[in-house]
Amino acid sequence: MSATAAAGRPMAHYAAARRAGDFVFVSGVVAVDPVRQAVLQRYDELPAEAVAALTTLGYCTGQMSVDLYEAPAVVQSWFVLDRIRAIAREHGGDMQDAIKLVQYFRDLRHYPFYNRVRGLFYPGEPPASTVVEVSRFMPGDGALIEVEATLHLPRKA
Amino acid sequence: MSATAAAGRPMAHYAAARRAGDFVFVSGVVAVDPVRQAVLQRYDELPAEAVAALTTLGYCTGQMSVDLYEAPAVVQSWFVLDRIRAIAREHGGDMQDAIKLVQYFRDLRHYPFYNRVRGLFYPGEPPASTVVEVSRFMPGDGALIEVEATLHLPRKA
Amino acid sequence: MSATAAAGRPMAHYAAARRAGDFVFVSGVVAVDPVRQAVLQRYDELPAEAVAALTTLGYCTGQMSVDLYEAPAVVQSWFVLDRIRAIAREHGGDMQDAIKLVQYFRDLRHYPFYNRVRGLFYPGEPPASTVVEVSRFMPGDGALIEVEATLHLPRKA
Amino acid sequence: MSATAAAGRPMAHYAAARRAGDFVFVSGVVAVDPVRQAVLQRYDELPAEAVAALTTLGYCTGQMSVDLYEAPAVVQSWFVLDRIRAIAREHGGDMQDAIKLVQYFRDLRHYPFYNRVRGLFYPGEPPASTVVEVSRFMPGDGALIEVEATLHLPRKA
Amino acid sequence: MSATAAAGRPMAHYAAARRAGDFVFVSGVVAVDPVRQAVLQRYDELPAEAVAALTTLGYCTGQMSVDLYEAPAVVQSWFVLDRIRAIAREHGGDMQDAIKLVQYFRDLRHYPFYNRVRGLFYPGEPPASTVVEVSRFMPGDGALIEVEATLHLPRKA
Amino acid sequence: MSATAAAGRPMAHYAAARRAGDFVFVSGVVAVDPVRQAVLQRYDELPAEAVAALTTLGYCTGQMSVDLYEAPAVVQSWFVLDRIRAIAREHGGDMQDAIKLVQYFRDLRHYPFYNRVRGLFYPGEPPASTVVEVSRFMPGDGALIEVEATLHLPRKA
Amino acid sequence: MSATAAAGRPMAHYAAARRAGDFVFVSGVVAVDPVRQAVLQRYDELPAEAVAALTTLGYCTGQMSVDLYEAPAVVQSWFVLDRIRAIAREHGGDMQDAIKLVQYFRDLRHYPFYNRVRGLFYPGEPPASTVVEVSRFMPGDGALIEVEATLHLPRKA
Amino acid sequence: MSATAAAGRPMAHYAAARRAGDFVFVSGVVAVDPVRQAVLQRYDELPAEAVAALTTLGYCTGQMSVDLYEAPAVVQSWFVLDRIRAIAREHGGDMQDAIKLVQYFRDLRHYPFYNRVRGLFYPGEPPASTVVEVSRFMPGDGALIEVEATLHLPRKA
Amino acid sequence: MSATAAAGRPMAHYAAARRAGDFVFVSGVVAVDPVRQAVLQRYDELPAEAVAALTTLGYCTGQMSVDLYEAPAVVQSWFVLDRIRAIAREHGGDMQDAIKLVQYFRDLRHYPFYNRVRGLFYPGEPPASTVVEVSRFMPGDGALIEVEATLHLPRKA
Amino acid sequence: MSATAAAGRPMAHYAAARRAGDFVFVSGVVAVDPVRQAVLQRYDELPAEAVAALTTLGYCTGQMSVDLYEAPAVVQSWFVLDRIRAIAREHGGDMQDAIKLVQYFRDLRHYPFYNRVRGLFYPGEPPASTVVEVSRFMPGDGALIEVEATLHLPRKA
Amino acid sequence: MSATAAAGRPMAHYAAARRAGDFVFVSGVVAVDPVRQAVLQRYDELPAEAVAALTTLGYCTGQMSVDLYEAPAVVQSWFVLDRIRAIAREHGGDMQDAIKLVQYFRDLRHYPFYNRVRGLFYPGEPPASTVVEVSRFMPGDGALIEVEATLHLPRKA
Amino acid sequence: MSATAAAGRPMAHYAAARRAGDFVFVSGVVAVDPVRQAVLQRYDELPAEAVAALTTLGYCTGQMSVDLYEAPAVVQSWFVLDRIRAIAREHGGDMQDAIKLVQYFRDLRHYPFYNRVRGLFYPGEPPASTVVEVSRFMPGDGALIEVEATLHLPRKA
Repeated sequence: MSATAAAGRPMAHYAAARRAGDFVFVSGVVAVDPVRQAVLQRYDELPAEAVAALTTLGYCTGQMSVDLYEAPAVVQSWFVLDRIRAIAREHGGDMQDAIKLVQYFRDLRHYPFYNRVRGLFYPGEPPASTVVEVSRFMPGDGALIEVEATLHLPRKA
Repeated sequence: MSATAAAGRPMAHYAAARRAGDFVFVSGVVAVDPVRQAVLQRYDELPAEAVAALTTLGYCTGQMSVDLYEAPAVVQSWFVLDRIRAIAREHGGDMQDAIKLVQYFRDLRHYPFYNRVRGLFYPGEPPASTVVEVSRFMPGDGALIEVEATLHLPRKA
Repeated sequence: MSATAAAGRPMAHYAAARRAGDFVFVSGVVAVDPVRQAVLQRYDELPAEAVAALTTLGYCTGQMSVDLYEAPAVVQSWFVLDRIRAIAREHGGDMQDAIKLVQYFRDLRHYPFYNRVRGLFYPGEPPASTVVEVSRFMPGDGALIEVEATLHLPRKA
Repeated sequence: MSATAAAGRPMAHYAAARRAGDFVFVSGVVAVDPVRQAVLQRYDELPAEAVAALTTLGYCTGQMSVDLYEAPAVVQSWFVLDRIRAIAREHGGDMQDAIKLVQYFRDLRHYPFYNRVRGLFYPGEPPASTVVEVSRFMPGDGALIEVEATLHLPRKA
Repeated sequence: MSATAAAGRPMAHYAAARRAGDFVFVSGVVAVDPVRQAVLQRYDELPAEAVAALTTLGYCTGQMSVDLYEAPAVVQSWFVLDRIRAIAREHGGDMQDAIKLVQYFRDLRHYPFYNRVRGLFYPGEPPASTVVEVSRFMPGDGALIEVEATLHLPRKA
Repeated sequence: MSATAAAGRPMAHYAAARRAGDFVFVSGVVAVDPVRQAVLQRYDELPAEAVAALTTLGYCTGQMSVDLYEAPAVVQSWFVLDRIRAIAREHGGDMQDAIKLVQYFRDLRHYPFYNRVRGLFYPGEPPASTVVEVSRFMPGDGALIEVEATLHLPRKA
Repeated sequence: MSATAAAGRPMAHYAAARRAGDFVFVSGVVAVDPVRQAVLQRYDELPAEAVAALTTLGYCTGQMSVDLYEAPAVVQSWFVLDRIRAIAREHGGDMQDAIKLVQYFRDLRHYPFYNRVRGLFYPGEPPASTVVEVSRFMPGDGALIEVEATLHLPRKA
Repeated sequence: MSATAAAGRPMAHYAAARRAGDFVFVSGVVAVDPVRQAVLQRYDELPAEAVAALTTLGYCTGQMSVDLYEAPAVVQSWFVLDRIRAIAREHGGDMQDAIKLVQYFRDLRHYPFYNRVRGLFYPGEPPASTVVEVSRFMPGDGALIEVEATLHLPRKA
Repeated sequence: MSATAAAGRPMAHYAAARRAGDFVFVSGVVAVDPVRQAVLQRYDELPAEAVAALTTLGYCTGQMSVDLYEAPAVVQSWFVLDRIRAIAREHGGDMQDAIKLVQYFRDLRHYPFYNRVRGLFYPGEPPASTVVEVSRFMPGDGALIEVEATLHLPRKA
Repeated sequence: MSATAAAGRPMAHYAAARRAGDFVFVSGVVAVDPVRQAVLQRYDELPAEAVAALTTLGYCTGQMSVDLYEAPAVVQSWFVLDRIRAIAREHGGDMQDAIKLVQYFRDLRHYPFYNRVRGLFYPGEPPASTVVEVSRFMPGDGALIEVEATLHLPRKA
Repeated sequence: MSATAAAGRPMAHYAAARRAGDFVFVSGVVAVDPVRQAVLQRYDELPAEAVAALTTLGYCTGQMSVDLYEAPAVVQSWFVLDRIRAIAREHGGDMQDAIKLVQYFRDLRHYPFYNRVRGLFYPGEPPASTVVEVSRFMPGDGALIEVEATLHLPRKA
Repeated sequence: MSATAAAGRPMAHYAAARRAGDFVFVSGVVAVDPVRQAVLQRYDELPAEAVAALTTLGYCTGQMSVDLYEAPAVVQSWFVLDRIRAIAREHGGDMQDAIKLVQYFRDLRHYPFYNRVRGLFYPGEPPASTVVEVSRFMPGDGALIEVEATLHLPRKA
């Protein structure tokens, strides 16, 4: 599968994911809307079921001063993990097959938001996880989180 | 094995390591004492045999002004690599099975300290190694080094 | 193969690459000339065929004020990817077997230069790709790009 | 009532609160434990009922990496508002009599934490509220929040 | 009156103003459009009569390079004071009843703009006035001015 | 009383203080000499009795290197509080009627100086007190302290 | 010709150009769209023939991550030089009559982009040229390049 | 005419202006009082007619807190343009002969002040105009504006 | 004459100077050695007669600690002015025909060095002169001074 | 006498003091408690007689907010001078024999505190004294003052 | 001799110099005028013979823009060395007896100025000399140089 | 002995050392190669016996990434102390006669390196020692360490 097949303009020429034996290596994902070519920042940029799920965590309060500070990290966390899950599904698996995540943050103070959201995606056994704070991501300063996943999807015999 | 089974409070909900086929992916390790929940900084926070080994490298001088500057990086290097070795052993392998390390530093001037300590853990063939300087690690500014290991541990037929 | 076997003085004790099953993990590569022990900065530090290839992209203009700003990122991009290709060949493969790249930049404004150069190495299916901006690389401030590759090279039955 | 009557050493010579007609002006409160003379930073520095209440908001997760980032602001929010409530009670009123709050933050990104905690103290009509980010508070960099309250407590005829 | 009754989404759960005896305490006001949830920055975001009044002060020049630098502070000054006047009127008073203002600026170089605008609102006796430069306001970096007013509105016997 | 009636040029159009019922709200005071329009910085800018009083606290040492560092904060503390006392007296009260002070500092390390000086003005019951460090005051960087007072001066029946 | 005759709102009261003898002095030009009053940043803000010309230089790649970094400087270079050419034509000349350019950059790393674009406008003899990096341009931080041209257009006898 | 002929000490050995054919090139002017050798900062450093003219623009308010922030840029704008007009007159012309101005600012936020003042000097056709923000001017940080003028003064036949 | 005709590689495609009527506009000059493509920094990079002339000003002391700090600005001043003189001579004139100089500095503290050197080139009537401090010059941080000259060289009838 | 003979761990291998003829050179002293290996910061780390002496200077106020800012510099001043006096006594002299002090500060605003404390140690003729502000002292950022003394202690004939 | 005997107010209680055996230790000297209590900055603050001597070095040019940058370091160098010579003479010696100087600078770029001035004071054998750049000197940011001298003045038998 | 007699160009006019009675005062030494006039940075700039000695301490590892970070401080430490020993020998003494050292560092993290090297020079009784971190040394940013020594070398009777 090629990244250029995605809706909207491609970020660059690279594969969204590459299978190699029993593994699928997923490229680092940031929360860029492929059509608008913009980084997500607000709850209303997510689908309704995402907002509903995030509300169970206490987010999407409807109070501007609270949401203003929390929305970017919460929304990007959901988008990025949802995108990885979609890729897993395209390869015949699901989120529990993402057995290793490398998670880059621009500011580690966003970790608590991300961590609660990730809990929605991993109700069962959690993945191996690496977390580091780095300087910046490609689409610019608005991007707060980038996640690189390794999927373990043994081919059926 | 789950990270929540470790002594003390867990860092977060993630697996310390996940097996996938012949590989074991180890989560990024920082030098946090699981009981005190603090990053190691001094030689007396290590077991005696670690101190003895580090002394052969010329560290642990007993002079306050020297140890003050060298201890944090030296101590954390030992702790992190020792933890990876412990995980390898829990999976039936040993340090030489950690065939790839991604090593993050907050300040690359700590590399010489780390490099000497790593030599103690890899008397034989060294691993593939990536080294980058990043901004910060999760438990806070005191953490100077994070290492992510990939173990190659083929299941016995 | 051990890094210490390379021409010149070794960067440090680590393996340039390690095979594990059907995978070869390549250590992070920076554009250090192993003999001069210096980071490449100018077009005349590359072989002629590299310069010829880069000229097709519009680089190597011969105008000092242009080349001065573009050469370091362009030259290092070529060097680093060429080195990975060489390692792939040493293991019996080629660039298309480098199915995953983690690409670290000191300044993401260098990405466009790198991206054009990478196109020269991947005429066919592109790799899975992660891009992050970090703080610094080992040989010092002159190094702008570090790339870590994973090769998928199934052993012949 | 004089501040010097409080347990532990006084912060300075000032009144914790002064009545003037039907108003009680409460001095700015920061989360300093009067006995240890230290700013509160962790959940275990709060009484159990406070922790229980905060847990209903999703805080006190028991995960070190989450609590580490959230605890200081959450804990100080609770402590400061609880202290204002205690002063209101000493003057024969309760929290709903604190009809105006001036809330100073060292970093407005802590506002969402504070806002949720304040909701626990004001189940009914909320106070008039001013929020600004300033540079620092008296006991030092660890103090993140200072709140000044005006109580309306008409004397009984 | 509750802040949640205002048009658009509330900033947070707090009262726009609270009466206490003969006083009405107005919460700190910043120039946020309650519907668009954005801080005002341009003259065309104000009603026509506001623009007309500001033109008498020499502002709204119609020259882009001038208005670009002056509009944010001038526009926010008008909006904030107009909002306080509206609250005074809701409580049966008018601007001259706002007998004390605490005025926070992110940059005191905006004071001259604010001062001229305030003159439009206080043709008679001026209020007691405190002016300080602080770090930031809740809705983010675009907000330059926050004003907290105390109204003296004795209840009719 | 209007601020424009003071000696020298007015700071701006605002009231030095406004009575409202039993309260007098005093505008924030900084140590600006109304005639010279400059912020006070040296002991010889104070009247002799002020210097005498400050000497009892150990200030005004006559040693240039000591006075150079201490004089600005000590002198401004005295001037500001003395001005508030004068306003209280103009309204028929005295310092003990200033029952609430909001004290802004540009650098909280000046608090000890201010605190000792304030002790001279409040031999009896101290006021309610709020202390925060902010960025700057109106007359410029030389101003270190601003104090806003609330006086409780019930009208005689 | 007066700048106020241009479409949209004028930047300020100044002449776009003034003839003096055989010379026409062109005011410094930045890439501000006169109708939208915004600095150009994207390829789709240029006319199609401009995009076509820039594509011959290797720009307008259609890859978001590349264009994102290159578009602002490339687009502004084209716009500014095209505007100077238009002014030259209004005075009966053409680009080759712009015999001297003073070129201000906010970041000299944009010079290579500008230099290639300028080559499109000067196929023949190049102008005298001064290049310096300065701090900022009038419409704000988005403006990267300002060019001041001197035209030599001898009046016909 | 040589700069050394001016009152007071010369800035340096350079000509205040040089005629070349029909042009007079005026050296960059900053607002330095040639006798006191200091940069102008206050309204009372200007002649009365200047103050009167500036008052028509709304400046010279007589309020210390307003004038303090506005005076330096307003005063220097007048001084610099007045000096250029004087030089034009010394060469038998007037301000309308200054057909091109290069205007350097240390902070472009001063442009609105300058722009209004320049309107006083150019009631008719405005000059060609270049505006850039640079780092500093020769007499030091107090100098905010430097203007270089080109006069077109054809010699009489 | 074209810049590409100079020895070594061209800086970029631009004319070293362009005649227009009686004027020759010289491109901004920085002290780049055209062969080595490096900015001059030391006295021994100048010809002997330049060193001799500079010695008469008290420079070239032969003391390393003195020359180290003074050489870059002194050497570049000489080189830049000497290059302008050479261009003037190529056009049949000499230094006194450079009737206007715009002189850009990266640090105005270098002005005294430059000023003394310029005195060597202008024994007679000095030029009109503009001096500003800017951020950077094209060949990089080592370049401290850039000078743009306008020559007045009336064509012989 | 050797520094290694002191209680606790040595700072490093150096002599606390060395006699040379009639002089004793004392190594630079910082306020490190030799047993706890920590820099002194609080009054309760000093012996009671020290606190009593400091109280006569107005320090040790018992008010947390005052002592917090003053204690580190006051306490370290006493400790360092007391240590020098102890060394003088070990060599058969006393404080008045310390005829020259070089006093390094991390922040010269601590000088007034130090100066008053030094007065306690030199009731008679003061020493020759050099004072400079430097960047840092060996045991880390907590150390504010370092003093190097020269003792003149002629050997008895 | 005591420092308190000097004209004007003393810097602090210390000895300007202390004899110890055959040595006289001079306290660190900065260029503070004891009467005005200000750091010297201009040539006209020196006696005429000093100016005459400095003119022989090429300083005191009479050009404002040159003297402005050079005067502070040149003037302070002369003042400080002249003061040390005066102290030497008070003790019956002269400058050549100052056999060791420790010279602190706030900016080592001032060294060339100081070095030339010192040459005026040491026509013969130069002293042992230490030069370091530190952060600040006691009387404040205006002080650029501090010199500590050791005099060797054997008592006459 | 005069510094001007050394090989290469002198740093400045000062004495490398001056005898005064039984003392020899050595000027501050930095690691400048007198012939190349450059600060030492690499092991291969030292004589072979120095390298051999440093290898016994674990330095000179031959691994580029380690030596790169350690060499500058280690090499300069050896050079500076070796130079002091050479001066001691020129005066008929040896290193043990350097009874007092003032050691300036640009970064105290280099102390451990220096301390180990100094141990090679002082096998017996260590000197009195002062250590401070300052801003910079004369030959520029590459110099990390400066040491000033006092030798006690009683003249033979």
